[in-house]
Amino acid sequence: MTEVAIFGAGRIGKIHAGNLARQPGVRLKWVVDPDGAAAGALAEAHGAKVADRDAVFADRSVGAVVVASSTDTHADLIERAAAAGMAIFCEKPVDLALDRARRCADAVKRAGVHCLIGFQRRYDPTFAAAKARIEAGEIGAPEMLVVTSRDPGAPPVEYIRRSGGIFKDMLIHDFDIFRWILDDEAATLHATGSCLTDPAVGQAGDVDATAVTIRTKSGRLAQINTIRRAAYGYDQRFEVLGSKGMLQAGNHRPTEVVAWTGASVSADKPEHFFLERYRIAYAKEMTHFFETLAAGMPPRTTIEDGVKALELAEAATTSWRERRIVEF
Amino acid sequence: MTEVAIFGAGRIGKIHAGNLARQPGVRLKWVVDPDGAAAGALAEAHGAKVADRDAVFADRSVGAVVVASSTDTHADLIERAAAAGMAIFCEKPVDLALDRARRCADAVKRAGVHCLIGFQRRYDPTFAAAKARIEAGEIGAPEMLVVTSRDPGAPPVEYIRRSGGIFKDMLIHDFDIFRWILDDEAATLHATGSCLTDPAVGQAGDVDATAVTIRTKSGRLAQINTIRRAAYGYDQRFEVLGSKGMLQAGNHRPTEVVAWTGASVSADKPEHFFLERYRIAYAKEMTHFFETLAAGMPPRTTIEDGVKALELAEAATTSWRERRIVEF
Amino acid sequence: MTEVAIFGAGRIGKIHAGNLARQPGVRLKWVVDPDGAAAGALAEAHGAKVADRDAVFADRSVGAVVVASSTDTHADLIERAAAAGMAIFCEKPVDLALDRARRCADAVKRAGVHCLIGFQRRYDPTFAAAKARIEAGEIGAPEMLVVTSRDPGAPPVEYIRRSGGIFKDMLIHDFDIFRWILDDEAATLHATGSCLTDPAVGQAGDVDATAVTIRTKSGRLAQINTIRRAAYGYDQRFEVLGSKGMLQAGNHRPTEVVAWTGASVSADKPEHFFLERYRIAYAKEMTHFFETLAAGMPPRTTIEDGVKALELAEAATTSWRERRIVEF
Amino acid sequence: MTEVAIFGAGRIGKIHAGNLARQPGVRLKWVVDPDGAAAGALAEAHGAKVADRDAVFADRSVGAVVVASSTDTHADLIERAAAAGMAIFCEKPVDLALDRARRCADAVKRAGVHCLIGFQRRYDPTFAAAKARIEAGEIGAPEMLVVTSRDPGAPPVEYIRRSGGIFKDMLIHDFDIFRWILDDEAATLHATGSCLTDPAVGQAGDVDATAVTIRTKSGRLAQINTIRRAAYGYDQRFEVLGSKGMLQAGNHRPTEVVAWTGASVSADKPEHFFLERYRIAYAKEMTHFFETLAAGMPPRTTIEDGVKALELAEAATTSWRERRIVEF
Repeated sequence: MTEVAIFGAGRIGKIHAGNLARQPGVRLKWVVDPDGAAAGALAEAHGAKVADRDAVFADRSVGAVVVASSTDTHADLIERAAAAGMAIFCEKPVDLALDRARRCADAVKRAGVHCLIGFQRRYDPTFAAAKARIEAGEIGAPEMLVVTSRDPGAPPVEYIRRSGGIFKDMLIHDFDIFRWILDDEAATLHATGSCLTDPAVGQAGDVDATAVTIRTKSGRLAQINTIRRAAYGYDQRFEVLGSKGMLQAGNHRPTEVVAWTGASVSADKPEHFFLERYRIAYAKEMTHFFETLAAGMPPRTTIEDGVKALELAEAATTSWRERRIVEF
Repeated sequence: MTEVAIFGAGRIGKIHAGNLARQPGVRLKWVVDPDGAAAGALAEAHGAKVADRDAVFADRSVGAVVVASSTDTHADLIERAAAAGMAIFCEKPVDLALDRARRCADAVKRAGVHCLIGFQRRYDPTFAAAKARIEAGEIGAPEMLVVTSRDPGAPPVEYIRRSGGIFKDMLIHDFDIFRWILDDEAATLHATGSCLTDPAVGQAGDVDATAVTIRTKSGRLAQINTIRRAAYGYDQRFEVLGSKGMLQAGNHRPTEVVAWTGASVSADKPEHFFLERYRIAYAKEMTHFFETLAAGMPPRTTIEDGVKALELAEAATTSWRERRIVEF
Repeated sequence: MTEVAIFGAGRIGKIHAGNLARQPGVRLKWVVDPDGAAAGALAEAHGAKVADRDAVFADRSVGAVVVASSTDTHADLIERAAAAGMAIFCEKPVDLALDRARRCADAVKRAGVHCLIGFQRRYDPTFAAAKARIEAGEIGAPEMLVVTSRDPGAPPVEYIRRSGGIFKDMLIHDFDIFRWILDDEAATLHATGSCLTDPAVGQAGDVDATAVTIRTKSGRLAQINTIRRAAYGYDQRFEVLGSKGMLQAGNHRPTEVVAWTGASVSADKPEHFFLERYRIAYAKEMTHFFETLAAGMPPRTTIEDGVKALELAEAATTSWRERRIVEF
Repeated sequence: MTEVAIFGAGRIGKIHAGNLARQPGVRLKWVVDPDGAAAGALAEAHGAKVADRDAVFADRSVGAVVVASSTDTHADLIERAAAAGMAIFCEKPVDLALDRARRCADAVKRAGVHCLIGFQRRYDPTFAAAKARIEAGEIGAPEMLVVTSRDPGAPPVEYIRRSGGIFKDMLIHDFDIFRWILDDEAATLHATGSCLTDPAVGQAGDVDATAVTIRTKSGRLAQINTIRRAAYGYDQRFEVLGSKGMLQAGNHRPTEVVAWTGASVSADKPEHFFLERYRIAYAKEMTHFFETLAAGMPPRTTIEDGVKALELAEAATTSWRERRIVEF
């Protein structure tokens, strides 16, 4: 039986706790959250108890931690868990500061602990199937990638101010998709952006729409387009062109009903937001974490992946701010 | 140069005249229509002249006639053209009375003239591609056929009264699709119907919605559903299941625009009605008529096909009226 | 806490037990199956115990039974559970004999126990959404229904011999869909069938492909087409035309990957079979059972629905065997 | 009757001549081509005669010229036609050199002649419908544009050497789509490219795959991705996101057949290449030319549009070669 502590009893913490509960041989022991009521409710729902950080890291029976707390706590929790020899499942990003993230990666490496960073999109059935089919050679050598990543609505400006900017907050997932799907690294990167949905975002020193182009070391081309608000909902797609064909990985729809009316033929719009779209991905991610832990295999999304995506996000921020192409 | 006379200067006559004009080595010489103004306008548009029937059949230079006049004139015109040794392109149906249609077929056969009956759906690119792929063995042996055939709106009841009933007027096309796609003949037929869109249709002794099932001599199953009014427009589809797979032949859309809104993801509804949906089919049909005429080959849709479809329409009328299964 | 006994530890029993485990306030207490090993394994997986029938019905703490055992046991278990005042979740069919099924319905009614018959398709997200949209008036008055219901492959002939025939075994679901979607009852029914996929099915006195037409009391038309083997998998669709438009309820796909190759543009084929396609439906069905039980509301699929669907299946069998239209 | 001369009797010249022949009140009088046999054949097909340039410009009865000859002849022919007061229909590009193109535009302006540049994509039914729906406000203010433009196969390297490079040869169409759909002008442009399909292209000093990002004066974002060879054929799509939704303008398919097999559910791949995809666009373009000529209205695609698209192509070439962002 692996005893687990979870940090963070908010929206995503609940998702992870629920998925934890379905893993065989795994038991949620501790819930940690500054909001005591939230911690208590989540603990009760799963037969766990509330604790503080120190108690968790002092409990040698804890085999793994799930870090679903606020971004500014990630690095510290990773380092303490690594020091305690606990396996780590941590939401993205590792940290907003690249050097701190790199130090975390070093700590994990030195400690030799199992560590999965929550790039849950790699566990989405559609995205994972596309990746598997590329690896099976179905489209030959990948050549071009187009990633569309749009949120249904912008978060409060207060959130945006603490977010590290759109490239670190939102595109970090898309940078990870880029690296994963093309299996290549950036040689040059160009990013631009605009404030199209809310002037307050611009006043906060950020943009809410971006267009990024990456040329890889082997000459492959990738384009990413993002926006904080798409009127039709959460839009998560990519398409990858290879020498033998193209694969498109599309959105999921709530139902397969099609309506034929005097106006048009219409289907459902995409799943509302990430909790709906990536519901299965989150479940598979947690299963993967414990399966690879048990097997002594590295997880699909390592802390090095977290650092690499952050490097791209930082380069994109620089490219946008300084209006120049960044070379790696 | 083949000189041609056209009977009927109405909506479908104009379509055929326009397609005639694009055939190499073909010239429209005569236009015949009781409506002199319509005849004159169509003749002028194509450099032809107005004539009456007798003049046409007396003109030994006429090599082919296109019959696009009212249904009650078809049989007589076919017989006169056959007697004159002229090739015949005739809109469906041959006649509303089965025995008269059979006599026409005999006349054509005896005269040995080229004769195409206007089941234009067999020339539709989508339907023709489905047929070709079935013949190429793509789905193995055909087993089941589902035909959906719906009009955007009912014609005036006055039209319906003279139409011969929905089975002869509307389903005759679907019966031809059945014979063509399954390449088989009916063993038993069951038809039922209802008056769902307009009570006046029922008062005229007809129905406006039907459901037909045919079991073929080799045991294949076919179902046809039709209605005079579909709110979303003209719906012309079939799907055929075979031992190795299924082919669906779908509607055409005016454009390939897809709209994503807060409500749904929507595409164009189908082409408005038969003139739009079968525009290309009509053009290909006319080309096929002259190409097979020149090559001395039988056309894809013969007068025997016209008789066979009428036999099914008559059987369906009987099945519906007498509430019984018809055996052939 | 509601204590539950499950009869049947096979494929579908396991599904139901897993869904039971996710209901709050519900505990699986007993597992009953003639196959002791299967019963033991399922009991162990959910912290339950193995028992025999008599022990279950003698245990007054049992509040509900789930009947997932072989068809020939359903009626007896329903009657015993009703007599014991236990709520009943029973897989279809109630019984293969109509009079026996009716006696069960009477027993349930007299006992006043909660009873859900497992027409799981009504809980499918796509089918349920279509129904809800019809009820909301989106397509006006329903007029025509086309149901396509195809299995990926035929069961062993041994199964078919004991199945009650294709109309009771396979189409019973489609007859329930018909009643539910059109919210109407049959006035006349015509069924025909063929043995197209395996001659052994015919030798067993059954067919493996059917075509059914129903005209309802209010004149609506429904067509059902089924086959035991579709090369491309499990095909579960319906479309309902109303006075204002049409709704199509389509298949689910494992992923939303689309491949563009030199040959075609292709998407996933449908989910493999009923366990995959109706995975969510089974979960929702179980939740619905306990929610309506707690609320004192009748479930969406009652034992009367089970009897009505069986009446249609029997009529269809008669229509096919006696080659006649059945009037109700 | 408008008398017309056509320059160029090649592939695209034949298309234009065929479309000319369908315009009422228009007659093809002269065909000019250095290949006398091609000129003669095309002239004969349309009842025209072969001439040389001087003869055409000396013939005061000529009201319009269609320039479908090689790119290096366009500017000279435009200037001579303008000087002769003839209306001009000219294939893109105006010229490969921007200053020369600008001089042509000046000459056309001074002469006040009607001049349409052949950006035929604006006449494509799907693209034109998308544009009309944007203008009708369906998606609110346009914010982001993604253009996918892929050829089925690269032309001979010999052609590429004389083409002016991929940005002027291939993307000039996409730059025109950008200006037309967003109704805005570029503020900054970034282009990169790779040689992915054929090393010979690189040796010729060009690339065969590109990724372009444009930020407009009003802050809108556009991305274009192109490649000379897509294994699945000619891929011509764009999608435009606005404040209220998104419109996707997709490919056309030869037929609407969908095949369900044991492997997948597949539809036709897109129309083969530009002659097929833009067949209707070419016809509508020619009709538009003569209709706007008759009405004294400017055409949808003016010589100024030709110059503007060339400016973008030149900026993209600079951005790619000099690895820098170009500001306008």
